Amino acid sequence: LAAAAMPRGERGRLFAAEQGGLEGLIVHTRSPNNAEPPLEALVRSWITPTPLFYIRSHAPNPQIKAGDYRLQVEGMVEQPGEYSLAELKDRFPGRSAVATLTCAGNRRDELSARKPIEGVQWRAGAIGNAEWSGVTLADVLKHAGVKPEAGHVWFESVDLHPKGGKQIPFGGSIPLEKVFEDAAGMPGALLAHGMNGEPLTADHGYPLRVVVPGYIGARSVKWLRRIVVSDRPSPNHYLTHAYKLVEKDAELAWEEAGPLYRFEMNCVIAAHRLTPGGGKAELVVDGFALPPGSGATLAAVEVSADGGETWTKATFTKPSRPFQWSLWQASLKWNGQGDTLIARATDSNGETMPEHEPWNMKGYMMNAWHRTPIRNDQ
Amino acid sequence: LAAAAMPRGERGRLFAAEQGGLEGLIVHTRSPNNAEPPLEALVRSWITPTPLFYIRSHAPNPQIKAGDYRLQVEGMVEQPGEYSLAELKDRFPGRSAVATLTCAGNRRDELSARKPIEGVQWRAGAIGNAEWSGVTLADVLKHAGVKPEAGHVWFESVDLHPKGGKQIPFGGSIPLEKVFEDAAGMPGALLAHGMNGEPLTADHGYPLRVVVPGYIGARSVKWLRRIVVSDRPSPNHYLTHAYKLVEKDAELAWEEAGPLYRFEMNCVIAAHRLTPGGGKAELVVDGFALPPGSGATLAAVEVSADGGETWTKATFTKPSRPFQWSLWQASLKWNGQGDTLIARATDSNGETMPEHEPWNMKGYMMNAWHRTPIRNDQ
Repeated sequence: LAAAAMPRGERGRLFAAEQGGLEGLIVHTRSPNNAEPPLEALVRSWITPTPLFYIRSHAPNPQIKAGDYRLQVEGMVEQPGEYSLAELKDRFPGRSAVATLTCAGNRRDELSARKPIEGVQWRAGAIGNAEWSGVTLADVLKHAGVKPEAGHVWFESVDLHPKGGKQIPFGGSIPLEKVFEDAAGMPGALLAHGMNGEPLTADHGYPLRVVVPGYIGARSVKWLRRIVVSDRPSPNHYLTHAYKLVEKDAELAWEEAGPLYRFEMNCVIAAHRLTPGGGKAELVVDGFALPPGSGATLAAVEVSADGGETWTKATFTKPSRPFQWSLWQASLKWNGQGDTLIARATDSNGETMPEHEPWNMKGYMMNAWHRTPIRNDQ
Repeated sequence: LAAAAMPRGERGRLFAAEQGGLEGLIVHTRSPNNAEPPLEALVRSWITPTPLFYIRSHAPNPQIKAGDYRLQVEGMVEQPGEYSLAELKDRFPGRSAVATLTCAGNRRDELSARKPIEGVQWRAGAIGNAEWSGVTLADVLKHAGVKPEAGHVWFESVDLHPKGGKQIPFGGSIPLEKVFEDAAGMPGALLAHGMNGEPLTADHGYPLRVVVPGYIGARSVKWLRRIVVSDRPSPNHYLTHAYKLVEKDAELAWEEAGPLYRFEMNCVIAAHRLTPGGGKAELVVDGFALPPGSGATLAAVEVSADGGETWTKATFTKPSRPFQWSLWQASLKWNGQGDTLIARATDSNGETMPEHEPWNMKGYMMNAWHRTPIRNDQ
């Protein structure tokens, strides 16, 4: 439905977030909107307020009238169907979950500094933690009746944008098995209409989006229009070509690489301040850490002010849980030597973030030790 | 064709290698044969003599009568067909190439020592370099006429073996684009009937096998029966489930992981000897190194006798070329301190082998720095 055809009042209600702008965010592009919060603001609360939540869009926000919205469910199911938002809410039990989403391209700017990479130059703020509410995809697919030969679930967005001379929707797929994963009390995939207790904003996928805990943000398709159950992964560009780890730009290299699904462990220094101590100064460091999307938890975050020779353990503000980030704080003595703070995380399997990360074409999955210059201006 | 039905003489001619046994190899299993050479023997020549070439089989050697053999070519091609060995040789130009094959599970025993892994406990000898002769898969597919929607080429072996309650052939696939790769004068994929100037032995795929330079050995399917051109990867177990990097044994984890295609850079110490020098003794170290399957070459091999504090550059016996291993030698002073030799390689892109490698369920792609105890018994 074209925006122009809508009554003024309704348009205002529907696109408040889009119209309200992106105040407080670092805006990389407008329409499509791509923006991230400053790190200092991001670590002020464990639940990321919606206006501070990073926005990753491949197309301008589509203009969807709530009453006209229908979700199509088709493919290898006994009962293909179409649901209005009200029907989804009425027919299936409500479910909510706190899950962290992060863009696979978060921290791209660090890889891009080594060798320039196209695309949004994300700093380290393309991550956020929200409470999502909706219905589980498992319930919807159980109702539709998945055929035995099915193995993947495709998602397709309402948006259409130019790619390789064609207009394509954003899309992708997840393995069917993920839909029925119920790890740590977290649904494998949620069809969410709510974010932090409010309806989704246009920037975050109004009226309905997918949320896939543990997976890179790209799999949590916004503005969801169509679900296709299939025996194979989605043929959509964003599954078959983009969102892969590839070191050189050759057609064959893209074909050889598998799609990215789970995000990797990460840890970022968001802020630090210098406080005078007895004899030596003290550095108080704040940050966030993300356990790997595998479902492991975080075992430790460590911070170093001497290039990694000695490490100080950080304290989590609450125990680490699967698929959810943690905020942390560390206090370390500082003798005025050294000019860089480093942070790294270790997960419950004993794996630690790598010191270095190989460069890749699209700048994905950057999770080397996070380094930030020490500011001695206080 | 049952072996019992064959005349004695013919059987003897066809299965000489099988009957001749596996002398000189470290035999892990018999029928299926899985065996590797001792490392000292492996580095005596750049071309690995066929009797020293590692053998990786998933089923007992199938009994194929040369005259009855037919290769089927089907799927998304204009002209499906069937070829005898003689027809393949007559119709298509002969082509040969020296390429290194290596099992994705090479060096599994090192990962297995950390946490036991099922399967053949390969040491570091599941690698070999041979001259393969045959016809290019590109020529065969050009003749068959590939349809535009095709994207992958499946290979299926003659052998049938039990897997998950069924009898399945070994199989897999490669992206169609790889077939037409002609990097560094090397065909993207060869249908080989010869190895080091002789017909293939039964252990190495008689009468016809695939050889895919740069890819893990599993993609070079032996005893090739059927080629299927398709718009998707093969549904064979060895592509969809085995030969993936997975950290926990969950159905979903196997589905999320992409198939392994290219092998990784590697470097192994095969032998060393201590020679008395002026004041300090000298360690002379021999080994092999493999450039990554990406098509890069090797830039350097380095050896350390002090835990990685100082490194000595090795000398290659000939310049590094894509898809082919190198033999190397290094001489380093040794003061009698330290008990371990370490070797690592760096490729032409500047990437160096990692110091540590995360454990994975199947023990694939182990390419951490290679360590071996210094023997001071001379």
